[in-house]
Amino acid sequence: MYNYDYLFGFTRSVFMKMGCSEKDSDIIAEVFMAAEIRNHASHGMIRIKDYYELWKAGRINIKPNVRIVHESPSTAVVDGDNAVGMVAARRSMEIAIEKADMAGTGWVATRHSNHFGIAGYYSMMALKHNMIGICLTNANPLVAPTFSISRMMGTNPIAVAIPALKEPPFVADFATTPVARGKLAVAEKKGEKVPFGFVQDKTGKPSDDPTILKSGGSMLTLGGDRVHGSHKGYCLSSIVDIFSALFSGANFGPFVPPSVAYLPLLEKKVGLGTGHFFGAMRIDAFQPADEFKAKMDEWIGTFRSAKPAEGEDRVLIPGDPEREAEARFMKDGINLVPAIKDDLITIAQELGISFK
Amino acid sequence: MYNYDYLFGFTRSVFMKMGCSEKDSDIIAEVFMAAEIRNHASHGMIRIKDYYELWKAGRINIKPNVRIVHESPSTAVVDGDNAVGMVAARRSMEIAIEKADMAGTGWVATRHSNHFGIAGYYSMMALKHNMIGICLTNANPLVAPTFSISRMMGTNPIAVAIPALKEPPFVADFATTPVARGKLAVAEKKGEKVPFGFVQDKTGKPSDDPTILKSGGSMLTLGGDRVHGSHKGYCLSSIVDIFSALFSGANFGPFVPPSVAYLPLLEKKVGLGTGHFFGAMRIDAFQPADEFKAKMDEWIGTFRSAKPAEGEDRVLIPGDPEREAEARFMKDGINLVPAIKDDLITIAQELGISFK
Repeated sequence: MYNYDYLFGFTRSVFMKMGCSEKDSDIIAEVFMAAEIRNHASHGMIRIKDYYELWKAGRINIKPNVRIVHESPSTAVVDGDNAVGMVAARRSMEIAIEKADMAGTGWVATRHSNHFGIAGYYSMMALKHNMIGICLTNANPLVAPTFSISRMMGTNPIAVAIPALKEPPFVADFATTPVARGKLAVAEKKGEKVPFGFVQDKTGKPSDDPTILKSGGSMLTLGGDRVHGSHKGYCLSSIVDIFSALFSGANFGPFVPPSVAYLPLLEKKVGLGTGHFFGAMRIDAFQPADEFKAKMDEWIGTFRSAKPAEGEDRVLIPGDPEREAEARFMKDGINLVPAIKDDLITIAQELGISFK
Repeated sequence: MYNYDYLFGFTRSVFMKMGCSEKDSDIIAEVFMAAEIRNHASHGMIRIKDYYELWKAGRINIKPNVRIVHESPSTAVVDGDNAVGMVAARRSMEIAIEKADMAGTGWVATRHSNHFGIAGYYSMMALKHNMIGICLTNANPLVAPTFSISRMMGTNPIAVAIPALKEPPFVADFATTPVARGKLAVAEKKGEKVPFGFVQDKTGKPSDDPTILKSGGSMLTLGGDRVHGSHKGYCLSSIVDIFSALFSGANFGPFVPPSVAYLPLLEKKVGLGTGHFFGAMRIDAFQPADEFKAKMDEWIGTFRSAKPAEGEDRVLIPGDPEREAEARFMKDGINLVPAIKDDLITIAQELGISFK
């Protein structure tokens, strides 16, 4: 078991050794750790290696000039200058919050960025400002539109964080597919099948094979099949892609660059890097903040007291599982699987720092 | 078969006879007809009777004072004064567009409204202003959160309209459930079962019975079950509810009033009427409008040329089916089922106008 501070310090050291500034390394480590302790390990320490390899391949800019290239009272377009995604994303959300302070709401589209960790982290930045936070990002293509077998979209997540008064905040953070890609990898490692409705084979037939992406298969959108509303998941994923890429000038859909160095950059570009979209909405642009937050307490209490189905203990509020994981991991420590440990030891050796 | 103008004129007359102004009656008829010709008949002429009965019961205000009660540069809260939903919603979206003109984006939360027809209509109002339009609304509770059997949410739709240059616009307009409630009614009338994943019985067991809502059952959120991501549908539906009700001061979740007169008003109120949420985003607050729209053409062309799955003809862009239906109905006319015709004849007789 590792404690938070040890893993935070190590992650920070890795990025400082790569040449990132102290400030940027702090931000990057904080977002990696947010994924880890919120039980989204698929976006946590496991991804340090991806960034390390991208850096070795000269594919990310560790001294970026993240800057506004266009703006209106409530909007901005940010160029991430090919930064580590967390650096571009964190600055973009800060700008959204600054805009909201002045105009009631702030909306920032970011181009030329890279994988930014968990979307929920950025949406939650708004909470302490008495704002609702929103974060979207596109991602490298694995997902087929309804009726198609072409991988056109990423798992394109949506995160929305809403503050309450005495209750913990409402935090939704979810891919627009039935499951995250990490779930397929876990099933593959265990030699298990996955439920139908997650993936299809290269002809479009339903499949329960978690390795099907390696043989021309694709992931399905939320809903699974047309009968159960996969076209709605396709709409959601498209909206995330268009807001992230077309508002910013990033690559869209099938042209989003890979977030790992072992996949080559695509020949065709339709924009710059990966795209994100951020929103901050000042609560008192609509209602007095304390009244709204007291009403959120009432909303949360009402939904928490919904009657559980037979065999279920309780009804959850979005954000409950992650918050409970965070409390558990901060107390009991964080476990890393041996393969990740080995990767981190190798990286540490190569960079002349220590990990054990 | 009826033609558009005849049904438009009739609908307009019904609302004028109820006492609505000429302008309001035009708006209401336009929205009803938009549902009908876009093949969302469940929100079309069939609902005229619901409004007629609400009016007879004194439950809607046909001379409303729809007004802004709070605002910031990019936001407003509108009180609908218990208007016919279309009247409050249309004015609210106009305000969102005016705000976007000034501040880059405009966001309006509306309370004390009623059922407003199809969400897509309002999102599409933004298109001719070179803006993206967004529309959300809560609705009377039929849907259970994940792990629950309590009806806590409506089918809470999301509509997003995005302009293109030469291509038709992208228009997504969908309930955050696998199917709209109307599909259950159709299956019931035909004596058919529905696929599993749409509804559950009163204990939370999967059901294929379209009449199950009458015996304590509930609709499921998009995703269907937890394994297939129903918690993501629950997140979406919750976000729609919170944006529509808590930003505006309307009733939330289980307290949203019924949109039909044969159901009594709820005893407990937590706000005023039904809530909606509208957004307008000026494209050139992010990118030059023509560049963005040309890029949307490229996006649409790319997705349209995705490879169809075996047995499928083509890959659709959100908005394609509705636009094709509109062209067909404008040419061939609009069919009404006998039960609806009979209702309209009765209403016409009672109001001293004609329908045949």
